[in-house]
Amino acid sequence: MKMAFIIFNDMTALDFLGAFDPLSRLKTMGFLKNVSWEICAPTQQVTDGAGLLITPSQVGTPLDRYDLVVVPGGEGARKLRHDEGFLKWLKTMEPCPFKASVCTGALLLGAMGFLAGKKATTHPTARVELAEYCDKVVDQRVVDEGAVITAGGVTAGIDLGLYLAEKFVGFDVKEKIRRQMDYYG
Amino acid sequence: MKMAFIIFNDMTALDFLGAFDPLSRLKTMGFLKNVSWEICAPTQQVTDGAGLLITPSQVGTPLDRYDLVVVPGGEGARKLRHDEGFLKWLKTMEPCPFKASVCTGALLLGAMGFLAGKKATTHPTARVELAEYCDKVVDQRVVDEGAVITAGGVTAGIDLGLYLAEKFVGFDVKEKIRRQMDYYG
Repeated sequence: MKMAFIIFNDMTALDFLGAFDPLSRLKTMGFLKNVSWEICAPTQQVTDGAGLLITPSQVGTPLDRYDLVVVPGGEGARKLRHDEGFLKWLKTMEPCPFKASVCTGALLLGAMGFLAGKKATTHPTARVELAEYCDKVVDQRVVDEGAVITAGGVTAGIDLGLYLAEKFVGFDVKEKIRRQMDYYG
Repeated sequence: MKMAFIIFNDMTALDFLGAFDPLSRLKTMGFLKNVSWEICAPTQQVTDGAGLLITPSQVGTPLDRYDLVVVPGGEGARKLRHDEGFLKWLKTMEPCPFKASVCTGALLLGAMGFLAGKKATTHPTARVELAEYCDKVVDQRVVDEGAVITAGGVTAGIDLGLYLAEKFVGFDVKEKIRRQMDYYG
């Protein structure tokens, strides 16, 4: 299982961290040996919407090698969905078996056509924009359409990460991770 | 209002981000103009427990200039509470009016003597260790002892950030931030 966590300027860092924390615990808590991840960005360094500096482990490399790609949201996502160069890079995730988004990251999945004919969710303030790209906008924390899984706003990234941990490894492991994160049951 | 968010190697990044997101929204959502923050570390770069690279905005500078200092936890916190050089730097936060911790960050506040005679909380697995440093370990998401505020494990950082937003600016602003974060009410 190879995971890619996308980061970009003006993202909301908590969108990414909320999913990254539980999914990286699959390895750090010893549940899966064959899981690895990269932090993937289009730039050498990324500044989130509140000025936090994060350095990616992969810069601009194609994303087709990953089993799961997680795309966060934030102001940057609203802007980048109109950026052809960025979308060309991000669209290298097309062959990946699992594509996931947090918050307005769903607008990026939508702009690439991955939500066509599907149900999806996003931040409560972005539902009208998301409707352009998908079959139906659903008011749920996590919407699983098999190959494409979308989550609600910001903190719903935690629910996405836990949901995927259960989807991949099962309920008991997810519960151990959830309790270690001291998160609501 | 000047805020310092402490980061260090082998911390749990979500401990920090959970508090950083709602507190930085005091400014980014336009509620407070005179609020600023620095990301403060003892080293030029920090690697969290899952390999994430974060670059601080302040390296090793004294912390006595801040109104609020937030200390995260993680494996690094358990180790660093026995590191004299680290504690000497961190203890420059002593004059700050508000000292807060997330997760095992409470062990660092305890090791510096800031929890003596006080109630406090931490990650569920660290309660025995915390008991050495405080009057009483309490099973609550956030424990407010006035100048020292401690929070539970990992995701309780979000509750800490929202709690402090309400403490400093009021219920209505906290609720607007909470809804924007799509977090449980």
